[in-house]
Amino acid sequence: MKYYSYENFKNDTNRLISQVKNFEFDAIVAVARGGLTLSHAMAEGLNIRDVQSIRTELYDDTCKREELTIFGSAEFTDIKKVLVVDDIADSGDTLNEIMKHLRGCFKDVEFQSATLFYKKTSIYEPDFWINEADDWIDFFWERDFSE
Amino acid sequence: MKYYSYENFKNDTNRLISQVKNFEFDAIVAVARGGLTLSHAMAEGLNIRDVQSIRTELYDDTCKREELTIFGSAEFTDIKKVLVVDDIADSGDTLNEIMKHLRGCFKDVEFQSATLFYKKTSIYEPDFWINEADDWIDFFWERDFSE
Repeated sequence: MKYYSYENFKNDTNRLISQVKNFEFDAIVAVARGGLTLSHAMAEGLNIRDVQSIRTELYDDTCKREELTIFGSAEFTDIKKVLVVDDIADSGDTLNEIMKHLRGCFKDVEFQSATLFYKKTSIYEPDFWINEADDWIDFFWERDFSE
Repeated sequence: MKYYSYENFKNDTNRLISQVKNFEFDAIVAVARGGLTLSHAMAEGLNIRDVQSIRTELYDDTCKREELTIFGSAEFTDIKKVLVVDDIADSGDTLNEIMKHLRGCFKDVEFQSATLFYKKTSIYEPDFWINEADDWIDFFWERDFSE
Protein backbone atom coordinates (compact mmCIF):
# COMPACT_ATOMS: atom_id res chain seq x y z
CA MET A 1 0.00 0.00 0.00
CA LYS A 2 1.46 3.30 -1.13
CA TYR A 3 0.69 6.59 0.63
CA TYR A 4 -0.24 9.21 -1.93
CA SER A 5 0.51 12.57 -0.32
CA TYR A 6 -0.84 16.01 -1.04
CA GLU A 7 2.53 16.92 -2.56
CA ASN A 8 2.31 14.01 -5.02
CA PHE A 9 -1.26 15.01 -5.79
CA LYS A 10 -0.28 18.63 -6.40
CA ASN A 11 2.38 17.69 -8.92
CA ASP A 12 0.28 15.09 -10.71
CA THR A 13 -2.79 17.31 -10.85
CA ASN A 14 -0.82 20.11 -12.44
CA ARG A 15 0.44 17.63 -15.04
CA LEU A 16 -3.12 16.50 -15.67
CA ILE A 17 -4.23 20.13 -16.03
CA SER A 18 -1.51 20.65 -18.64
CA GLN A 19 -2.72 17.61 -20.55
CA VAL A 20 -6.34 18.73 -20.76
CA LYS A 21 -6.07 22.52 -20.88
CA ASN A 22 -6.16 22.83 -24.67
CA PHE A 23 -9.35 20.80 -24.98
CA GLU A 24 -11.44 23.64 -23.56
CA PHE A 25 -13.86 21.79 -21.35
CA ASP A 26 -16.89 23.80 -20.20
CA ALA A 27 -17.78 21.74 -17.16
CA ILE A 28 -16.49 19.03 -14.85
CA VAL A 29 -18.43 16.06 -13.52
CA ALA A 30 -16.81 14.78 -10.34
CA VAL A 31 -17.26 11.13 -9.50
CA ALA A 32 -17.97 11.18 -5.75
CA ARG A 33 -16.32 10.56 -3.47
CA GLY A 34 -12.95 9.72 -5.03
CA GLY A 35 -12.94 12.41 -7.67
CA LEU A 36 -14.07 15.36 -5.54
CA THR A 37 -10.73 16.79 -4.43
CA LEU A 38 -9.22 16.30 -7.89
CA SER A 39 -12.22 17.94 -9.55
CA HIS A 40 -11.95 20.92 -7.26
CA ALA A 41 -8.25 21.40 -7.97
CA MET A 42 -8.68 20.94 -11.73
CA ALA A 43 -11.64 23.31 -11.85
CA GLU A 44 -9.57 25.97 -10.10
CA GLY A 45 -6.57 25.37 -12.34
CA LEU A 46 -8.64 25.35 -15.54
CA ASN A 47 -10.92 28.16 -14.38
CA ILE A 48 -14.05 26.06 -14.82
CA ARG A 49 -16.89 27.17 -12.56
CA ASP A 50 -19.41 24.48 -13.46
CA VAL A 51 -18.59 21.46 -11.31
CA GLN A 52 -21.28 18.86 -10.79
CA SER A 53 -21.09 15.53 -9.04
CA ILE A 54 -22.37 12.06 -9.59
CA ARG A 55 -22.00 8.93 -7.51
CA THR A 56 -22.53 5.22 -7.82
CA GLU A 57 -23.51 2.51 -5.42
CA LEU A 58 -22.93 -1.19 -5.68
CA TYR A 59 -25.77 -3.18 -4.22
CA ASP A 60 -24.51 -6.67 -4.85
CA ASP A 61 -20.92 -7.70 -5.30
CA THR A 62 -21.87 -11.00 -6.87
CA CYS A 63 -23.26 -9.32 -9.94
CA LYS A 64 -21.18 -6.22 -9.97
CA ARG A 65 -21.81 -4.42 -13.19
CA GLU A 66 -25.52 -4.94 -13.32
CA GLU A 67 -26.02 -3.65 -9.82
CA LEU A 68 -24.09 -0.42 -10.22
CA THR A 69 -26.59 2.38 -9.71
CA ILE A 70 -25.82 5.95 -10.64
CA PHE A 71 -27.09 8.79 -8.45
CA GLY A 72 -27.10 12.50 -9.18
CA SER A 73 -28.60 14.23 -12.14
CA ALA A 74 -26.34 16.37 -14.25
CA GLU A 75 -27.68 19.41 -16.09
CA PHE A 76 -25.90 20.86 -19.11
CA THR A 77 -27.15 24.10 -20.59
CA ASP A 78 -24.99 25.65 -23.32
CA ILE A 79 -22.33 23.09 -22.49
CA LYS A 80 -20.42 21.31 -25.26
CA LYS A 81 -17.50 19.55 -23.63
CA VAL A 82 -17.48 17.91 -20.24
CA LEU A 83 -14.59 16.33 -18.38
CA VAL A 84 -15.51 13.44 -16.08
CA VAL A 85 -13.01 13.23 -13.23
CA ASP A 86 -12.21 10.37 -10.86
CA ASP A 87 -9.17 9.44 -8.79
CA ILE A 88 -8.51 6.03 -10.32
CA ALA A 89 -9.69 3.67 -13.01
CA ASP A 90 -9.25 0.46 -11.02
CA SER A 91 -11.67 -2.20 -12.24
CA GLY A 92 -12.97 0.50 -14.56
CA ASP A 93 -16.59 -0.47 -13.89
CA THR A 94 -17.60 2.86 -12.38
CA LEU A 95 -16.17 5.10 -15.08
CA ASN A 96 -17.33 2.77 -17.83
CA GLU A 97 -20.93 2.89 -16.60
CA ILE A 98 -20.87 6.61 -15.91
CA MET A 99 -19.53 7.48 -19.37
CA LYS A 100 -22.18 5.27 -21.01
CA HIS A 101 -24.87 6.81 -18.83
CA LEU A 102 -23.86 10.42 -19.54
CA ARG A 103 -23.38 9.84 -23.29
CA GLY A 104 -26.79 8.18 -23.40
CA CYS A 105 -28.51 11.03 -21.55
CA PHE A 106 -26.81 13.93 -23.30
CA LYS A 107 -26.37 13.17 -26.98
CA ASP A 108 -25.17 16.67 -27.88
CA VAL A 109 -22.46 16.87 -25.25
CA GLU A 110 -18.95 15.49 -25.74
CA PHE A 111 -17.60 13.63 -22.72
CA GLN A 112 -14.00 12.77 -21.94
CA SER A 113 -12.50 11.39 -18.77
CA ALA A 114 -9.45 12.01 -16.59
CA THR A 115 -7.94 10.19 -13.63
CA LEU A 116 -4.72 10.31 -11.64
CA PHE A 117 -4.28 6.54 -11.76
CA TYR A 118 -5.04 3.84 -14.28
CA LYS A 119 -4.70 0.11 -13.76
CA LYS A 120 -3.80 -1.91 -16.84
CA THR A 121 -6.45 -4.46 -15.91
CA SER A 122 -9.19 -1.82 -15.98
CA ILE A 123 -11.94 -2.48 -18.53
CA TYR A 124 -12.00 1.25 -19.25
CA GLU A 125 -9.05 3.52 -20.10
CA PRO A 126 -9.59 7.21 -19.30
CA ASP A 127 -8.78 9.69 -22.07
CA PHE A 128 -6.27 11.33 -19.76
CA TRP A 129 -4.35 9.72 -16.90
CA ILE A 130 -1.03 10.27 -15.15
CA ASN A 131 0.19 7.18 -13.30
CA GLU A 132 -0.13 3.49 -13.79
CA ALA A 133 -1.29 1.89 -10.53
CA ASP A 134 0.40 -1.38 -9.63
CA ASP A 135 -0.41 -1.35 -5.93
CA TRP A 136 -3.24 -0.22 -3.69
CA ILE A 137 -3.14 3.57 -3.45
CA ASP A 138 -3.63 5.08 -0.02
CA PHE A 139 -4.90 8.53 -1.04
CA PHE A 140 -4.27 11.32 1.47
CA TRP A 141 -7.98 12.05 1.64
CA GLU A 142 -8.61 8.49 2.82
CA ARG A 143 -5.77 8.50 5.33
CA ASP A 144 -5.54 11.98 6.83
CA PHE A 145 -9.06 12.41 8.19
CA SER A 146 -10.80 10.47 10.92
CA GLU A 147 -13.41 10.83 13.63
CA MET B 1 -3.85 37.68 2.17
CA LYS B 2 -3.11 34.55 4.14
CA TYR B 3 -2.00 31.30 2.49
CA TYR B 4 -4.07 28.45 3.85
CA SER B 5 -1.97 25.32 3.38
CA TYR B 6 -2.95 21.69 3.17
CA GLU B 7 -1.44 21.16 6.63
CA ASN B 8 -3.67 23.89 8.12
CA PHE B 9 -6.62 22.36 6.30
CA LYS B 10 -5.86 18.88 7.60
CA ASN B 11 -5.77 20.04 11.21
CA ASP B 12 -8.87 22.22 10.93
CA THR B 13 -10.86 19.60 9.07
CA ASN B 14 -10.14 17.02 11.73
CA ARG B 15 -11.35 19.51 14.37
CA LEU B 16 -14.51 20.09 12.32
CA ILE B 17 -15.04 16.34 12.02
CA SER B 18 -14.79 16.06 15.81
CA GLN B 19 -17.39 18.81 16.22
CA VAL B 20 -19.97 17.18 13.97
CA LYS B 21 -19.33 13.45 14.45
CA ASN B 22 -21.96 12.93 17.17
CA PHE B 23 -24.73 14.49 15.11
CA GLU B 24 -24.88 11.48 12.80
CA PHE B 25 -25.37 13.08 9.43
CA ASP B 26 -26.48 10.74 6.65
CA ALA B 27 -25.34 12.83 3.71
CA ILE B 28 -23.21 15.82 2.76
CA VAL B 29 -24.10 18.56 0.30
CA ALA B 30 -20.95 20.22 -0.99
CA VAL B 31 -21.20 23.82 -2.11
CA ALA B 32 -19.15 23.87 -5.32
CA ARG B 33 -16.50 24.85 -5.91
CA GLY B 34 -15.26 26.06 -2.52
CA GLY B 35 -16.68 23.24 -0.44
CA LEU B 36 -15.64 20.28 -2.60
CA THR B 37 -12.28 19.39 -1.06
CA LEU B 38 -13.60 19.89 2.48
CA SER B 39 -16.68 17.77 1.73
CA HIS B 40 -14.51 14.98 0.41
CA ALA B 41 -12.27 14.98 3.47
CA MET B 42 -15.20 15.17 5.89
CA ALA B 43 -17.09 12.42 4.10
CA GLU B 44 -14.05 10.15 4.37
CA GLY B 45 -13.50 11.04 8.03
CA LEU B 46 -17.17 10.60 8.95
CA ASN B 47 -17.63 7.57 6.70
CA ILE B 48 -20.47 9.20 4.77
CA ARG B 49 -20.83 7.83 1.26
CA ASP B 50 -23.61 10.08 0.06
CA VAL B 51 -21.97 13.31 -1.13
CA GLN B 52 -23.91 15.54 -3.49
CA SER B 53 -23.04 18.96 -4.81
CA ILE B 54 -24.82 22.19 -5.47
CA ARG B 55 -23.55 25.45 -6.90
CA THR B 56 -24.67 29.02 -7.24
CA GLU B 57 -24.11 31.70 -9.80
CA LEU B 58 -24.39 35.42 -9.42
CA TYR B 59 -25.74 37.06 -12.51
CA ASP B 60 -25.78 40.65 -11.39
CA ASP B 61 -23.65 42.19 -8.69
CA THR B 62 -25.88 45.21 -8.40
CA CYS B 63 -28.71 43.18 -6.97
CA LYS B 64 -26.78 40.43 -5.37
CA ARG B 65 -29.17 38.36 -3.34
CA GLU B 66 -32.00 38.33 -5.80
CA GLU B 67 -29.80 37.18 -8.62
CA LEU B 68 -28.23 34.26 -6.85
CA THR B 69 -29.27 31.16 -8.78
CA ILE B 70 -28.86 27.69 -7.38
CA PHE B 71 -27.89 24.82 -9.68
CA GLY B 72 -27.89 21.12 -8.97
CA SER B 73 -30.74 19.03 -7.73
CA ALA B 74 -30.27 17.12 -4.53
CA GLU B 75 -32.05 13.83 -3.93
CA PHE B 76 -32.63 12.47 -0.44
CA THR B 77 -34.09 9.01 -0.03
CA ASP B 78 -34.18 7.64 3.53
CA ILE B 79 -32.05 10.57 4.59
CA LYS B 80 -32.82 12.44 7.81
CA LYS B 81 -29.84 14.68 8.53
CA VAL B 82 -27.74 16.49 5.95
CA LEU B 83 -24.61 18.55 6.49
CA VAL B 84 -24.11 21.41 4.01
CA VAL B 85 -20.39 22.12 3.63
CA ASP B 86 -18.61 25.19 2.28
CA ASP B 87 -15.14 26.63 2.79
CA ILE B 88 -16.16 30.01 4.19
CA ALA B 89 -19.17 32.04 5.22
CA ASP B 90 -17.94 35.38 3.89
CA SER B 91 -20.88 37.62 2.99
CA GLY B 92 -23.03 34.63 3.94
CA ASP B 93 -25.30 35.14 0.93
CA THR B 94 -24.55 31.81 -0.69
CA LEU B 95 -25.05 29.63 2.37
CA ASN B 96 -28.08 31.62 3.47
CA GLU B 97 -29.82 31.07 0.14
CA ILE B 98 -28.78 27.43 -0.13
CA MET B 99 -30.06 26.58 3.36
CA LYS B 100 -33.39 28.30 2.64
CA HIS B 101 -33.63 26.52 -0.72
CA LEU B 102 -32.89 23.06 0.70
CA ARG B 103 -35.16 23.48 3.72
CA GLY B 104 -37.93 24.66 1.40
CA CYS B 105 -37.52 21.71 -0.96
CA PHE B 106 -37.07 18.96 1.63
CA LYS B 107 -39.38 19.59 4.59
CA ASP B 108 -38.64 16.24 6.25
CA VAL B 109 -34.88 16.55 6.18
CA GLU B 110 -32.88 18.37 8.84
CA PHE B 111 -30.10 20.57 7.45
CA GLN B 112 -27.10 21.96 9.30
CA SER B 113 -24.04 23.71 7.92
CA ALA B 114 -20.29 23.63 8.45
CA THR B 115 -17.44 25.79 7.21
CA LEU B 116 -13.75 26.22 7.95
CA PHE B 117 -14.03 30.01 8.14
CA TYR B 118 -16.66 32.43 9.33
CA LYS B 119 -16.58 36.19 8.98
CA LYS B 120 -18.31 38.15 11.73
CA THR B 121 -19.94 40.37 9.12
CA SER B 122 -21.60 37.36 7.43
CA ILE B 123 -25.40 37.50 7.38
CA TYR B 124 -25.42 33.76 8.08
CA GLU B 125 -23.56 31.88 10.80
CA PRO B 126 -22.90 28.20 10.07
CA ASP B 127 -23.87 25.72 12.77
CA PHE B 128 -20.25 24.55 12.88
CA TRP B 129 -17.14 26.56 12.03
CA ILE B 130 -13.49 26.57 13.03
CA ASN B 131 -11.77 29.90 12.35
CA GLU B 132 -12.84 33.49 12.30
CA ALA B 133 -11.69 35.09 9.04
CA ASP B 134 -10.30 38.59 9.36
CA ASP B 135 -8.35 38.66 6.11
CA TRP B 136 -8.70 37.26 2.60
CA ILE B 137 -7.95 33.54 2.70
CA ASP B 138 -5.76 32.17 -0.06
CA PHE B 139 -6.89 28.54 0.00
CA PHE B 140 -4.35 25.99 -1.25
CA TRP B 141 -6.82 24.78 -3.86
CA GLU B 142 -6.94 28.27 -5.33
CA ARG B 143 -3.17 28.79 -5.24
CA ASP B 144 -1.53 25.46 -5.99
CA PHE B 145 -3.07 24.62 -9.36
CA SER B 146 -2.76 26.46 -12.65
CA GLU B 147 -2.71 25.91 -16.38
